[in-house]
Amino acid sequence: MARMIHSMIRVRDEAASVRFYDTAFGLKVADRLVFDSFTLIYLSNAEQTFELELTVNHDRTTPYDLGDGYGHLAVSVADVDAEHARLAAAGLSPLAVKDMSCGARFVGRFFFITDPDGYRIEVLQRGAPGRFL
Amino acid sequence: MARMIHSMIRVRDEAASVRFYDTAFGLKVADRLVFDSFTLIYLSNAEQTFELELTVNHDRTTPYDLGDGYGHLAVSVADVDAEHARLAAAGLSPLAVKDMSCGARFVGRFFFITDPDGYRIEVLQRGAPGRFL
Repeated sequence: MARMIHSMIRVRDEAASVRFYDTAFGLKVADRLVFDSFTLIYLSNAEQTFELELTVNHDRTTPYDLGDGYGHLAVSVADVDAEHARLAAAGLSPLAVKDMSCGARFVGRFFFITDPDGYRIEVLQRGAPGRFL
Repeated sequence: MARMIHSMIRVRDEAASVRFYDTAFGLKVADRLVFDSFTLIYLSNAEQTFELELTVNHDRTTPYDLGDGYGHLAVSVADVDAEHARLAAAGLSPLAVKDMSCGARFVGRFFFITDPDGYRIEVLQRGAPGRFL
């Protein structure tokens, strides 16, 4: 059966992206493959085997067009309010913490933060009463 | 520490997307939340806790602009050639199987397939000699 193992986004500045994902989510470089025209960087941490793959095209000089189709990568954390405070103190400008319900069902507590290329990442409270693991 | 738990994409036709991800990757609806203006569908299977989240905006009538920033979701399978044959037989038009090396290092064997909205999914051979789990 198919197993989801990574998500790939194209980024402009390798150092800035690696720094952001480390500071924000503790994601470290698990592998780095340098080709003639592009470099692939795989980020992960001990929480899962899933990786975030960054592609850096060496000749790219303009910002990527993020479109309106792709939404976001989501992460869960043990204490979403503490994590929001930590990221705000680190100068990463997280948006406000919000609660989401669907009718009478509580779904989760979360905030969004934006990476150096403008991709949004959703940070969700892990565990009950929300649905996110 | 942050744990990557899902990736979200916006899709046009819920039924077509659910059918595609089930047929192609055995991903089933784990949860479905209907709001006034949008529906969220979480897809997963027994291979991992990571989910693919589909957002269906009820008033969306035009195709999504996929841009050139987001790349793909990747899955691994036990036998990439057998999976390619199965998906071709199912009429899902996978692209050709390719091997990727970086210098002398073999990285992986893979193909791409496209979902109903045009998002590409990379299907990779799981296990050695490639790097993908």
